[in-house]
Amino acid sequence: MSISLTVLYNPPADAAAFDKHYDEVHAPLAAKLPNLESFTIVRPGPGPDGSAPQYHLIATLTFDSAEAMQASMGGPEGKAATDDLANFAQAGVTILTGEVQQVV
Amino acid sequence: MSISLTVLYNPPADAAAFDKHYDEVHAPLAAKLPNLESFTIVRPGPGPDGSAPQYHLIATLTFDSAEAMQASMGGPEGKAATDDLANFAQAGVTILTGEVQQVV
Repeated sequence: MSISLTVLYNPPADAAAFDKHYDEVHAPLAAKLPNLESFTIVRPGPGPDGSAPQYHLIATLTFDSAEAMQASMGGPEGKAATDDLANFAQAGVTILTGEVQQVV
Repeated sequence: MSISLTVLYNPPADAAAFDKHYDEVHAPLAAKLPNLESFTIVRPGPGPDGSAPQYHLIATLTFDSAEAMQASMGGPEGKAATDDLANFAQAGVTILTGEVQQVV
C-alpha cells in the first residue's frame, strides 16, 4: 500500500515570488527524492463563493512503503528539500503522512 | 488536465463514529459520483514528534475536467454526498479544488 506525504502551504505574502521559487527550485529538488512513486501539485482556486483558498499549494508525494519514504526523506535529497522550505514557505506548512486507500 | 477536489476533515469529537460513518455511508456515496476518475483516502498518522495530525482524513477526488466535476457535484449524487457531511463532519471540512500538475 502506498504512503503519501501531503504538504499544505499557507498563503504566502508574495504569491508570485513563492510560485517562482517553488517551480524553479523546490519542485526540482523534491523531484530528486529517491523512491518517489509520484509527485503532484495543485494550486487551489477560489471557493464557489469566491473566497480565497485556505492553502496556496498542495503537494502530494507518494512512496511505495513507509520505509521507502523514511529513507528518502532522511537522506541528503530529503534534507535539501526540507531545508529549502525556509527559503520560500515562511507563511507555514502543514505536513501529513499516511497510507493511501484507493476507493475508485 | 485533471481537476482534483480535496476534502480535509478536521479531527472529529468521536473518531470511531466518524470512521464508521465515513467507510459505511459517505465513501460509498462519494464513489457513486458520475465522471469520477479516482478517489483516494488518507488517514494521516501522528507527526514525527508524535503530535496529532491537523486533519483526521484527506479525501482526494479527481475528474477529467472542471466541467465534469461541476456536473458531477451539481447533480443528485453530488447533492447526496454534500448533504451527508452534516451527518458526520460537524467538526468542519476544508474543500480545495484545482488543476492537478503531475511532476513525477
